[in-house]
Amino acid sequence: MKKFINRPENLIEEMLAGFVIANANKVRRLETERVLVRKDAPVQGKVGVVTGGGSGHKPAFIGYIGKGLVDAVAVGDIFAAPPVQRAYEAIKASHGGRGVLLCFGNYSGDVMNFGMAQELAQSEGIEVESVIVNDDVASSPRDRMDNRRGVAGEVILWKVAGAMAEEGADLQKMKEVGERAVFNTRSMGVAHTPCILPTSGKPSFEIGPDEMEIGVGHHGEPGIERTKMMSADQVTELLTLKVIEDLPFASGDEVTVLINGLGSTSLLEMYICVRKVAEILSDHNIKIYRTYIGEFFTSLEMGGFSVTLTKMDDELKKYIDAPCDGVHFVQH
Amino acid sequence: MKKFINRPENLIEEMLAGFVIANANKVRRLETERVLVRKDAPVQGKVGVVTGGGSGHKPAFIGYIGKGLVDAVAVGDIFAAPPVQRAYEAIKASHGGRGVLLCFGNYSGDVMNFGMAQELAQSEGIEVESVIVNDDVASSPRDRMDNRRGVAGEVILWKVAGAMAEEGADLQKMKEVGERAVFNTRSMGVAHTPCILPTSGKPSFEIGPDEMEIGVGHHGEPGIERTKMMSADQVTELLTLKVIEDLPFASGDEVTVLINGLGSTSLLEMYICVRKVAEILSDHNIKIYRTYIGEFFTSLEMGGFSVTLTKMDDELKKYIDAPCDGVHFVQH
Repeated sequence: MKKFINRPENLIEEMLAGFVIANANKVRRLETERVLVRKDAPVQGKVGVVTGGGSGHKPAFIGYIGKGLVDAVAVGDIFAAPPVQRAYEAIKASHGGRGVLLCFGNYSGDVMNFGMAQELAQSEGIEVESVIVNDDVASSPRDRMDNRRGVAGEVILWKVAGAMAEEGADLQKMKEVGERAVFNTRSMGVAHTPCILPTSGKPSFEIGPDEMEIGVGHHGEPGIERTKMMSADQVTELLTLKVIEDLPFASGDEVTVLINGLGSTSLLEMYICVRKVAEILSDHNIKIYRTYIGEFFTSLEMGGFSVTLTKMDDELKKYIDAPCDGVHFVQH
Repeated sequence: MKKFINRPENLIEEMLAGFVIANANKVRRLETERVLVRKDAPVQGKVGVVTGGGSGHKPAFIGYIGKGLVDAVAVGDIFAAPPVQRAYEAIKASHGGRGVLLCFGNYSGDVMNFGMAQELAQSEGIEVESVIVNDDVASSPRDRMDNRRGVAGEVILWKVAGAMAEEGADLQKMKEVGERAVFNTRSMGVAHTPCILPTSGKPSFEIGPDEMEIGVGHHGEPGIERTKMMSADQVTELLTLKVIEDLPFASGDEVTVLINGLGSTSLLEMYICVRKVAEILSDHNIKIYRTYIGEFFTSLEMGGFSVTLTKMDDELKKYIDAPCDGVHFVQH
């Protein structure tokens, strides 16, 4: 295993130590738990935005802490949900008197632990709501959307919820618009190379030297099809059409496009692919409102990328366009 | 070769097409040449900042186009300097009446072609100066600094020069401060995995399954030592000490730290390493002024990272702290 690590059992602690040192202008760590918060949390008079999940997805989750984004993150082990107590401390640390919105991906461990933390906090009188992200169209059919995993679309929710909180929106309104942002967001990914888990030295999935997995999950979960490698245009078309037909996105719609690198796929390749995404959208008379491209939600050094489309409306445009000052996501 | 490309001969054109579509709010392409410029270039009354080099280093070079950063980029083929005409068009397209500063890395092709372009532009009455980046301490001994390659330290120069231009500084002052920024900047990298060149399918260098190359260049150039894989702390110490002793950085200095991922090394690993950098700097009584960490200057999907330190002074602090709005580098 070729990785720059020390002892695997110290991985998370050492990473967090480096994160706090490097970003001391924006974040701090709670003394008692693996919870990172905005330096000025809790911000009084603002709804707190909390997320969290397993480690290994950087810049998610902790890279989205900052003004106009996330207030607190409960940090799990590699690809593992954070425990209840940690999620609960994240809620408490971000509560500035107007309640807390939990924004996390649809994975059983996260749903259970954030759910219990929500109940704990509510029992202490903190108003808490949840928006659960399930944008991965490959992970379950459309009539069973509740089973779908959350992938790069989580970034869209953090952006929208963070901007709303900054503007002074109340918790119920944030939940309503946040859920619409999630419903309007659909993603699908592809990978040709697994990541190697630093704890075990094992690959996250097995794959042949000329194969790729269409619809792969962020932890290497199987997708809908194992195929031979295709050209950039072929695979981009496959992903984009599946995403378009899922909402379905329709002629006249405006969308935000998010092309997310899963770890080792170069920006050069992603730019070749976004060119094809734009061509397909144009063929469908769907207009691009804004494009994000880069590594937003990785799976360590997995080779692959995902296509995310969010159908925009005037309210979502306003929050997508708002400035933000996260650790790894800054927008004027 | 597992890459998301179409025909290798169309690689650069397709990438540029995607880049312009995705970032149409910030950049445009010249009609006649592979030159990308700020959308509002040439900005009248401001010195133009021009860079360029081979493709395959994204977000460098074109990701640094934007307000407070670079005005124009001459785009080369994969790992190949842009031709003279292209560099010349980049100069012309960024000249807003107060001259142009060329900021590029110390590679023979770039030095020759940007040099000839500079002469061409000067012969037409455009004032042009150059600052050549040579921050890679592994590429040549200190008494032969002129032979050193430019690596991630180029980002520091673009940040400083771009901020100065935005503030209204004149060309001579920008050259003076830019050269000091470069002199104060020293880097060293390590890699354990080459990238695969999309044009040939060949690796950028050969290396054993348990080896790493200390001092590797951005194109896989050999460094100073081929060793067995070490722990994160060991390799970070090795790089950081070499960088510190090179200027030499001294007790009481303040530095900007840039930890640059070369392609497939995860942010998780880089945060483990920056923790060790901070520890070593503290042991030397060197204070961290600001930290940048992420993929700033890659070599496609090469596995590795580099450590860059810039000795700060009040003037450099001001320009490092200035806001910028590049395609892939945004700072409030």
